[in-house]
Amino acid sequence: MRDLGKSGRLEAEAGVLLNKTLVIRQLDVTSEHSVKKCLDSLPDQKVDILVNNAGMGQIGPLESISMEDMRKVFETNFFGVVHLVKEVLPGMKKRGSGHIVVISSVMGLQGVVFNDIYAASKFAIEGFCECLAVQLLKFNIFVSLIEPGPVNTEFEMKLMGEVSRSDFPGTDAETIRYFKEIYLPSAHEIFASLGQKPDAVAKATVNVIGMNQPVFRHQTNALYTPLTALKYADNTGNLSVRTFYNLLFNYGTLFHMSLGFLRCITCNCFRRRVMPV
Amino acid sequence: MRDLGKSGRLEAEAGVLLNKTLVIRQLDVTSEHSVKKCLDSLPDQKVDILVNNAGMGQIGPLESISMEDMRKVFETNFFGVVHLVKEVLPGMKKRGSGHIVVISSVMGLQGVVFNDIYAASKFAIEGFCECLAVQLLKFNIFVSLIEPGPVNTEFEMKLMGEVSRSDFPGTDAETIRYFKEIYLPSAHEIFASLGQKPDAVAKATVNVIGMNQPVFRHQTNALYTPLTALKYADNTGNLSVRTFYNLLFNYGTLFHMSLGFLRCITCNCFRRRVMPV
Repeated sequence: MRDLGKSGRLEAEAGVLLNKTLVIRQLDVTSEHSVKKCLDSLPDQKVDILVNNAGMGQIGPLESISMEDMRKVFETNFFGVVHLVKEVLPGMKKRGSGHIVVISSVMGLQGVVFNDIYAASKFAIEGFCECLAVQLLKFNIFVSLIEPGPVNTEFEMKLMGEVSRSDFPGTDAETIRYFKEIYLPSAHEIFASLGQKPDAVAKATVNVIGMNQPVFRHQTNALYTPLTALKYADNTGNLSVRTFYNLLFNYGTLFHMSLGFLRCITCNCFRRRVMPV
Repeated sequence: MRDLGKSGRLEAEAGVLLNKTLVIRQLDVTSEHSVKKCLDSLPDQKVDILVNNAGMGQIGPLESISMEDMRKVFETNFFGVVHLVKEVLPGMKKRGSGHIVVISSVMGLQGVVFNDIYAASKFAIEGFCECLAVQLLKFNIFVSLIEPGPVNTEFEMKLMGEVSRSDFPGTDAETIRYFKEIYLPSAHEIFASLGQKPDAVAKATVNVIGMNQPVFRHQTNALYTPLTALKYADNTGNLSVRTFYNLLFNYGTLFHMSLGFLRCITCNCFRRRVMPV
């Protein structure tokens, strides 16, 4: 954890297993010193399975975000992962075994309006893993990307609340209106309709780790697959750009109805479990 | 140009048009000062079409590359583009017109072994553009990604020559062997078989700029489309990881024969022009 002061709930969940099968260590993935200290504290610095879960969000009009704040997103979401992978790789290669798991996002497969830098950071980690997976297979090391859709966490709600109160200096009024009056309500609705609990993502991750031949990619929310596959149907990319454009700006009513429909068919009243996790 | 000392050839090509329809300015996309100075020098700071062409390569085993050198690739290939887009966006939005063109790469669509950070930077720019294109359509601003395959330039040859002489501190002998004895000869062969001239990429870019409704994506080398489409055929991504693995490590002979065959069928002896540019 980055902040050990927040370990209380995790310690309570662990119960008697605390400091037996679960040991909590301090780790800030953006600090070379912290990474070194954490890895040095492990017996023989041995990591069998590295799960990269640290991440930060960023939404809003590009014009209002400083280059410095954009670089911060990349430091956590991209360079933090790269640095940890670089550190554990020599040991895994020497032992001829290992599994590198990265919590990516469906936004690593398909961009979403007003998520420019966050999506870019997740795309970056997807490309990085595509390169690495081929080389590492030669060393019997697996790479897996877990790609959740929206996940309902306190963190998400806090971020959405913050941006709805911001006034986005440097941004024109029209863009701010699209962001506050069209994007934010749609995003809220998507979270309410399609959002998963963090538990579901954790279970999907454990499932991938337990596979004999771990998959390279796993989307935790099956409802998102059609959206991320749109661009594959048209090499020019125009189909997906125009579909997302129309959904957002032209067919708001259809969009709300579709989500209502999805809420119905995925409701627990009908079946016990719709989404494979 | 970053280095005006290298403008001689371009000036010669421009001939009488120099300082009429072609004006050369100094620009280092990684310097906020240089970007500001360049944009301030334009009449009304007006940019109708922004073509982001600055880029740098990086190949080699991850273990041997410093975090600092990785960040440099992102400063040019990703943050340089983001910064320029951010600067020209308010003007384009105000005028309700504009075209943002980014020279990406097929490595923005599919990772390639030992190109971990370069591919990640190109993936990042693809994700960034996917987000932006939807919003900007509302302002009648188009975004286009040009995705070349290998391009035969002095720059590429120099990079390949340099890495073949390097000794990659921090990397195990087996990885270095895969890089020098398997990857580098394959890469050389790919450049010789499938490489395009920079001219072809320039023509493809002009073609996209001239379109009434510019496409969002354009791959300049049609022979690469099957390679970048492999992952779409299998959601788990295993098909593409294993195909690239087998091509590189198991079926070297088949790989060489395929390239020989491609060289034959795309040779100018048979037809005048095979690749649509």
